[in-house]
Amino acid sequence: MTREVAILGAGTTPFGELWERSFRELITLAGLEAVKESNIEGQEIGAMYVGSMSAGRLIGQEHAGAMAVDEAGLAGLHLPAVRVEAGDASGAVALRQGVLAVASGVHDVVVVGGVEKMTDVLEDETTRVLVSAADREWEGFFGATLPALYAMMARRHMHEYGTTREQLAAVSVKNHAHGAKNDRAAYPFTLTLDKVLDSPPVAEPLHVLDCAAPCDGAAAVVLAPLELARELVDDPVVVAASEQASDTLALHARASLTGIASTRAAADRAYARARVRPADIQVAEVHDSYTIAEILSIEDLGFFPKGEGGSAAPKGLTTYGGRVVVNPGGGLKARGHALGATGLAQAAEVVAQLRGTAGARQVADAEVGLAHALGGTGGTAVVHVLRRAGGGR
Amino acid sequence: MTREVAILGAGTTPFGELWERSFRELITLAGLEAVKESNIEGQEIGAMYVGSMSAGRLIGQEHAGAMAVDEAGLAGLHLPAVRVEAGDASGAVALRQGVLAVASGVHDVVVVGGVEKMTDVLEDETTRVLVSAADREWEGFFGATLPALYAMMARRHMHEYGTTREQLAAVSVKNHAHGAKNDRAAYPFTLTLDKVLDSPPVAEPLHVLDCAAPCDGAAAVVLAPLELARELVDDPVVVAASEQASDTLALHARASLTGIASTRAAADRAYARARVRPADIQVAEVHDSYTIAEILSIEDLGFFPKGEGGSAAPKGLTTYGGRVVVNPGGGLKARGHALGATGLAQAAEVVAQLRGTAGARQVADAEVGLAHALGGTGGTAVVHVLRRAGGGR
Repeated sequence: MTREVAILGAGTTPFGELWERSFRELITLAGLEAVKESNIEGQEIGAMYVGSMSAGRLIGQEHAGAMAVDEAGLAGLHLPAVRVEAGDASGAVALRQGVLAVASGVHDVVVVGGVEKMTDVLEDETTRVLVSAADREWEGFFGATLPALYAMMARRHMHEYGTTREQLAAVSVKNHAHGAKNDRAAYPFTLTLDKVLDSPPVAEPLHVLDCAAPCDGAAAVVLAPLELARELVDDPVVVAASEQASDTLALHARASLTGIASTRAAADRAYARARVRPADIQVAEVHDSYTIAEILSIEDLGFFPKGEGGSAAPKGLTTYGGRVVVNPGGGLKARGHALGATGLAQAAEVVAQLRGTAGARQVADAEVGLAHALGGTGGTAVVHVLRRAGGGR
Repeated sequence: MTREVAILGAGTTPFGELWERSFRELITLAGLEAVKESNIEGQEIGAMYVGSMSAGRLIGQEHAGAMAVDEAGLAGLHLPAVRVEAGDASGAVALRQGVLAVASGVHDVVVVGGVEKMTDVLEDETTRVLVSAADREWEGFFGATLPALYAMMARRHMHEYGTTREQLAAVSVKNHAHGAKNDRAAYPFTLTLDKVLDSPPVAEPLHVLDCAAPCDGAAAVVLAPLELARELVDDPVVVAASEQASDTLALHARASLTGIASTRAAADRAYARARVRPADIQVAEVHDSYTIAEILSIEDLGFFPKGEGGSAAPKGLTTYGGRVVVNPGGGLKARGHALGATGLAQAAEVVAQLRGTAGARQVADAEVGLAHALGGTGGTAVVHVLRRAGGGR
């Protein structure tokens, strides 16, 4: 990149069934919190990006970029405003587009938000929306749902590596233990292994409590060139890498079901760009839309060898005092998965961890963090490596 | 911008009711044509952008970025692929994101496509999709349709400036005269003024033949840094400016209905960036989703003083031999308005004009061209200024 980009501040709404808040209120609330933390005024904003997966279907509103500027009261600035979509990786992809916009030299201060409003629709519509991030023509049309597709990946991982249902369930238990300390989480309570195992099946081997629940919510960050960021805030966080990769939309076209090639490609590029190794990452927010997704991801990100991801949570390797703290914010499972918001909520959590402001969830001495998002079953993967920049005000 | 960006090549599908072609086939066909014209191989592509307004609602498929890479047979490259949306300006906004990606130094060769598949749905769904680019909560919910909103702008323009229905109809007649020479146009035939005036009313004063019809189609361009472009093709076209602006989604929040402030903001920035004046533009593709939209746009772009846009088409000022040739490709009216494809189809037409390859539609000695797209009623406007670069192979 032609110039270094930093995060000035971040904000989120609570996540959950927020019936008293509209789509446009959610994105505005998150954006205002991020702007306030960034010590900027609205007039300094040069462009806005909004990640949202399916506002057209869920609330009947496309054009969410301009809508966000309008609702923020900034229509008079005539900012460029862009909605970005890549399934449930939409927020992370929007973040990357914001990073490119700052790197290009065209914009200085850029606000990136992510939002989804999912609880005001009939339940089967949510199911159809989720699978529209996979291949509609070759998967959805034939009745596959997103959990059914991940169930196939789980089955294959169990077959090849001896991964067990208890290991899957342990991911959910761990993420709820983390999320219980997050007052913005949709499900801030602990779970026992038995409770997860005994929950109703969705698509075997995945049960209800293996699945992140759709919810409402929004998150946002403010970006600027690193030099400007150092003038504006005490503790800017540098975007050391912002990488994205795609893969086939449909599972049947892939060489393997026990790994997601887009994650590996994005991670390889990100580590090279940031000049770090997987072992340098102390804290990671990872896409656990289903428990198997976290297991695949921590392998594909290189935190654990292929086949050993299943034992990570049961052994305590992915929580405080382990090898790397994975999903300290509760993950998609306990924080809730408001599709387009997720990538930014992950970034906000990593920023708080690197700044040492994560309170009861704080990972000690975190210097390098990672955020990882998937769209669908990995048609898109995004990896951001974030690092304390130092040298703030 | 930190480095200059050029267009290597462009491609489009035919536009129309293309029942034998799927969404994914359309974007692939346009992309292949653009890639072929650009003298590149698939492996050289660094990223892909797809503009599509409402694939989630129209065909049940989100995640169109990764889908396009997949369908092109390039999934193994794990390219970053991004779908961009800003109402019916989606294609133009995708083009701008591609430009920023190249300018950022992160990607060299970037393919930008736009696509929409609109004729396989029930008619009232199309109407609802169109108004989802305006304000769903404050306009669509109360029964406003997109033509009804433009009709209000037309009424006000008639009231303030004496614009007539005959002047509106003359825009349609002129664009059909142009489009009759475009073998990819959905409606490649001429119209008489009486035919337009006598067509059934949609929302007075706009009649059926004042309205661009939804259709299927796709278009694409290939971008690269100017220096690389000069090595690859004979006649690269430089993106002299790529500017975008937003405004309120809803009409009621605007100070005036007789102009679109986002167009003016984007145009002012684009002229400054490209160091040209409106008078330097010889050929322009302009957003004529409704005849009044072209009249507003040619005023807001500075081609004609406010209030004089209505007389431009009747006086022959916006056709060959006039002041500036507006919509030589037939515009949205005669080429057809495949929402997400439109911004790229406009760019493809301007590229052909600047290269002198526009055949029967050629504007003599065109050196500087402009493409202008609107989302909804101007919640987003995008202006690209393109110029012959010279110095190719």
